[in-house]
Amino acid sequence: MLVRFGDTDPAGLVYYPNLFHYFHIAMEEFFRQRCGLPYHELIASQRIGFPTVNVITEFNHPLVYGDEIEIEVTVAAVGNSSVTLEYRVLRELDGAVCAHSRQTHVTINLDSRRPLAIPESLRKVFYEELAEGSEG
Amino acid sequence: MLVRFGDTDPAGLVYYPNLFHYFHIAMEEFFRQRCGLPYHELIASQRIGFPTVNVITEFNHPLVYGDEIEIEVTVAAVGNSSVTLEYRVLRELDGAVCAHSRQTHVTINLDSRRPLAIPESLRKVFYEELAEGSEG
Amino acid sequence: MLVRFGDTDPAGLVYYPNLFHYFHIAMEEFFRQRCGLPYHELIASQRIGFPTVNVITEFNHPLVYGDEIEIEVTVAAVGNSSVTLEYRVLRELDGAVCAHSRQTHVTINLDSRRPLAIPESLRKVFYEELAEGSEG
Amino acid sequence: MLVRFGDTDPAGLVYYPNLFHYFHIAMEEFFRQRCGLPYHELIASQRIGFPTVNVITEFNHPLVYGDEIEIEVTVAAVGNSSVTLEYRVLRELDGAVCAHSRQTHVTINLDSRRPLAIPESLRKVFYEELAEGSEG
Repeated sequence: MLVRFGDTDPAGLVYYPNLFHYFHIAMEEFFRQRCGLPYHELIASQRIGFPTVNVITEFNHPLVYGDEIEIEVTVAAVGNSSVTLEYRVLRELDGAVCAHSRQTHVTINLDSRRPLAIPESLRKVFYEELAEGSEG
Repeated sequence: MLVRFGDTDPAGLVYYPNLFHYFHIAMEEFFRQRCGLPYHELIASQRIGFPTVNVITEFNHPLVYGDEIEIEVTVAAVGNSSVTLEYRVLRELDGAVCAHSRQTHVTINLDSRRPLAIPESLRKVFYEELAEGSEG
Repeated sequence: MLVRFGDTDPAGLVYYPNLFHYFHIAMEEFFRQRCGLPYHELIASQRIGFPTVNVITEFNHPLVYGDEIEIEVTVAAVGNSSVTLEYRVLRELDGAVCAHSRQTHVTINLDSRRPLAIPESLRKVFYEELAEGSEG
Repeated sequence: MLVRFGDTDPAGLVYYPNLFHYFHIAMEEFFRQRCGLPYHELIASQRIGFPTVNVITEFNHPLVYGDEIEIEVTVAAVGNSSVTLEYRVLRELDGAVCAHSRQTHVTINLDSRRPLAIPESLRKVFYEELAEGSEG
């Protein structure tokens, strides 16, 4: 991803709410690439969403307009109706970890807005990712 | 503040990065109303900014399009070159605390992007607010 | 409205897509204040929306962080299933018209996404506003 | 580009101010790929920007979450201190032109915020692109 003009503020730095937009995009890619299920299909066909209920984030280095970044996503914990993902924002230039975020996402039914057990097919992937993360 | 159409997502809930935009607006109002110093003047005339370096946030109740909210800001801690603010998002309808965020903001010089000691006039206000918060 | 930190870009000016967010907020206020029907109720209870299909906009003066602005909305034309609104962005400081936009909004059913005739109660208000504008 | 969750609204459609964000990203890519000059370098080293002063846009088909799109940029006119670009948003699925925008961008010095003649190296590229567009 490239830091875009519209993402930065008068101080020349990424306006930090936009970093949370980046994290969400990374989560969408996680669902698409690693769970084999695009997030928009999950929403449209199964009416399931994963809103964020808890966020712990540290910003170590400011990101500036023009920076190229990559966001790594790993599974940190799997509950009955929630999954905790970790996001690390790496700057391509020097590999510096510019930000680190740990977020708990709750599985909900989008119509009732009530928590749901994680669907089995997704839970299986989350556990595989969790195991892989703890090995690596 | 009113939750706006453009702030919400296909699930009808506030897209959570926009909540961080609300927190930033609340911080700007804190500087304007309680410190007597509009944030844009701080930036323009003194070249001082308060980027966020640490965020702990819990979302308790989803906000939906049309909700009226108020954000309370209190000072939680004052360091040499940082201040920790707490934000509570209250829903007007029923007074429910929909979100709670604790954020550490570091004072920097916007040209060098290096940390600075908090200017004395601001430090004085931060300490007054801190005392008031612990009394109340 | 106040131009916010997060609305401006590294050049210190309002990032122009955010001006379209302002226009949308002005449209929401137009529905709430002048039509007596909050936009979120229109969407939730009647499943009617007014997406923008045509935009003509001129930016005359750049808006900067900290500017106070007001947006005037007038009805420029009323069709069977569309309404054309004009938006003028006035800077409080000197009354300068910083931007002017003419936008055609089509009435649609949000489930089928097909055009609808404007509901009678709204059409009545649009015509009154149109008459008022041409007098004034 | 992929239409992202955070770009869409409660109606499931792309919130139209975000389309202008897409246009701006397309302009940045135009500078990077076709002019050989990343927009952030133009801003940082030469203090030159191209704010938008005039916009004519038509939205023909709504974009929804999950759509893949491509934005074509062509040069429509070159003035002394301005360039007019045309943007066409194509949906990958069926090649439909979902939106079309014609925007005039003025060359300014970012410190004085005054118009400038277009730098010669850029003007040359703009004319080449203009010729190519009228041939093709």
